Amino acid sequence: MIVVQKYGGSSVADAERIRRVARRVAATRAEGHEVVVVVSAMGDTTDEIIQLVKEITGCPPEREMDVALSTGEQVSIALLAMALNEMGEPVTCLTGAQAGILTDSSHTRAKILNVNTGRLRVELKRKNIIVVAGFQGVDRLGDITTLGRGGSDTTAVALAVALKADLCEIYTDVDGVYTTDPRLVPEARKLEAVSYEEMLELANLGAVVLHHRAVELAMEYGVPLHVRSSFNYNNGTVVKEADYLEKSHVVTGVACDMNAAKIGIFNVFDKPGIAFTLFKALADKNINVDMIIQSAMRDERNDISFTCSQADLKKALSVVESLKMNLGADGYTHDEGVAKVSIVGAGMASNPGVAATMFEALYREGINLEMISTSEIKVSCIVKDEQAANAVRALHKVFELDQG
Amino acid sequence: MIVVQKYGGSSVADAERIRRVARRVAATRAEGHEVVVVVSAMGDTTDEIIQLVKEITGCPPEREMDVALSTGEQVSIALLAMALNEMGEPVTCLTGAQAGILTDSSHTRAKILNVNTGRLRVELKRKNIIVVAGFQGVDRLGDITTLGRGGSDTTAVALAVALKADLCEIYTDVDGVYTTDPRLVPEARKLEAVSYEEMLELANLGAVVLHHRAVELAMEYGVPLHVRSSFNYNNGTVVKEADYLEKSHVVTGVACDMNAAKIGIFNVFDKPGIAFTLFKALADKNINVDMIIQSAMRDERNDISFTCSQADLKKALSVVESLKMNLGADGYTHDEGVAKVSIVGAGMASNPGVAATMFEALYREGINLEMISTSEIKVSCIVKDEQAANAVRALHKVFELDQG
Repeated sequence: MIVVQKYGGSSVADAERIRRVARRVAATRAEGHEVVVVVSAMGDTTDEIIQLVKEITGCPPEREMDVALSTGEQVSIALLAMALNEMGEPVTCLTGAQAGILTDSSHTRAKILNVNTGRLRVELKRKNIIVVAGFQGVDRLGDITTLGRGGSDTTAVALAVALKADLCEIYTDVDGVYTTDPRLVPEARKLEAVSYEEMLELANLGAVVLHHRAVELAMEYGVPLHVRSSFNYNNGTVVKEADYLEKSHVVTGVACDMNAAKIGIFNVFDKPGIAFTLFKALADKNINVDMIIQSAMRDERNDISFTCSQADLKKALSVVESLKMNLGADGYTHDEGVAKVSIVGAGMASNPGVAATMFEALYREGINLEMISTSEIKVSCIVKDEQAANAVRALHKVFELDQG
Repeated sequence: MIVVQKYGGSSVADAERIRRVARRVAATRAEGHEVVVVVSAMGDTTDEIIQLVKEITGCPPEREMDVALSTGEQVSIALLAMALNEMGEPVTCLTGAQAGILTDSSHTRAKILNVNTGRLRVELKRKNIIVVAGFQGVDRLGDITTLGRGGSDTTAVALAVALKADLCEIYTDVDGVYTTDPRLVPEARKLEAVSYEEMLELANLGAVVLHHRAVELAMEYGVPLHVRSSFNYNNGTVVKEADYLEKSHVVTGVACDMNAAKIGIFNVFDKPGIAFTLFKALADKNINVDMIIQSAMRDERNDISFTCSQADLKKALSVVESLKMNLGADGYTHDEGVAKVSIVGAGMASNPGVAATMFEALYREGINLEMISTSEIKVSCIVKDEQAANAVRALHKVFELDQG
């Protein structure tokens, strides 16, 4: 059967780790499988390239940025292929372009349009292990593109889809998906399986095991993903269709994003187009807005609050400042000292009262909720940074996530 | 007019130097020219990649080696294009593959077969400066190849030929081609012009300003090369057809290669096929043999001596050892402590007695000649390492190279 394996940057950070990955790949082939391996750039390589670029310009053209960035994975594939060759394994390495990863031309954040599997099929027929550079592709002009955050995961899933692989394993430096961050809650438990939807919410909530783009693609084509550690042989977590899962728990996991920032705008005009004006302007600056809350009307004026990442806060504030007059706002405030705590569970939709249980647990801990947002399978609350860990522990307990 | 400029690794070793190259390229464009720039990898990048590879394997597969090595130039082109973009210049950067450099599949030492100029023409029509990665290409399978030593010079000349460029400038860290090494002889004089043939001999003799492959290609297509410094605006040396040169000097330059090693084999069989057996075996091991001397017959036995680079000495000795029986040799000896001193000049062929003048000058300095070899435009002698500098000074003086 065809197995796609993806190894992240920390799994190939040095020669010893590359050899370990090679042994793992060889073992998979020895079981009789055809193996396609996707690798990221070694450890800090990408940061080093970005540092070189910074010395040249503060505002690099994106096409050229992709030419530079894509070299990181190119070095990784060569070294991993050499390590496999050293072990006597038949192997070939391919850049994104050579592997037929065709993307649009949105440099630094390209989307995969198609995978031309011609070369891949040839190499599989030759019984070669194929090592493919993650995170990169080529557009119709023949220009090198990169896929942006989570790109290597997405490459792996796209190859699994295109080759109709039987299994797609995502190797990382953690054991799998946990009910919550084990550093915050020692009782956190590894999940055997989660649904795509739950994984998506967890990925979007800062539990960065797997990028949401990769999960979306896997969900669309029904490719099961096995998220596991490259440092041991334990089973990890399988991400698959919700139908196949036992819903013993209403809540599957608790996520915590310490990287949130909040902006509040007071007394904006209550008329059509105000929200559009604000959030269009933020989107134009590539600022990812997360939660949005518009308060009840008061004297034909509204308050609007939203959250974004702390990294985007400065950009977001300058957008708000520039629109103050247009929005008719009295003023605005911001707070970096907040965190987003969320519960996620596919069983939540059919179980009323889950949100109430959450709010009660947090109330009992004396935690104030600054913003709330809900979806079918998720409830998120913004709380003060210093109360976040406490909130996570309380929620993990009240939803009995420590009990398998 | 179309100008091809090539900048070596030391010219793009850091951000400040890359900016200096960018200013120079921009100035050339401001004069109204279409500019195609070829760059090498930054300073030590290639060594760093080789170091990474060494940690994985002592015997890397060549195809994968090329995948790794080619990233060095890929980073350079991105950074130089960014620096030009920062100055407001319209620019695009292309890898060897994107620039249409089609090669054979001899990985790590590929030969350029053709340049598909489609993309280059498009970019020139768009009035873009084009920055091309030197040293690399792509074979018919779409695999990345590298051109081996002197590869970037060869890329530049190949592009100049394919685009019918009016000028090909090779920027380096020296001012041009000198009558001899200025570190050995302070009176050494920069040459305004040398013929392709002289440059070839000088290049092969260790005066490493320009690689012989690039010179051969330029000679074949009659592309004049301007070798000059990227650190100043002085005129360098033009390499062109001998016809256009004034032959005021019989000898144009004196070269010295300290990197030579000598192997002598005693009393081999005097029968057909002996030389073939030896030198075929050396060639099979990729050992570049330079001078070969077979002594006069003595009791139906011959002595054979040859020189190679010091780097190849160990490999060469193991070949000799393995053939000792077949050759019927009594034994063999080797000497790393030798240097090759040569005089080169297109006017030499028509001037008898040049070699005699050379030998006399060396004799007067008390220098023993261990081996001699001659060609139409060159005489080379192997001398002891410690006498090499003295030999070069004496030859520079006797042929009046200090007098312009």
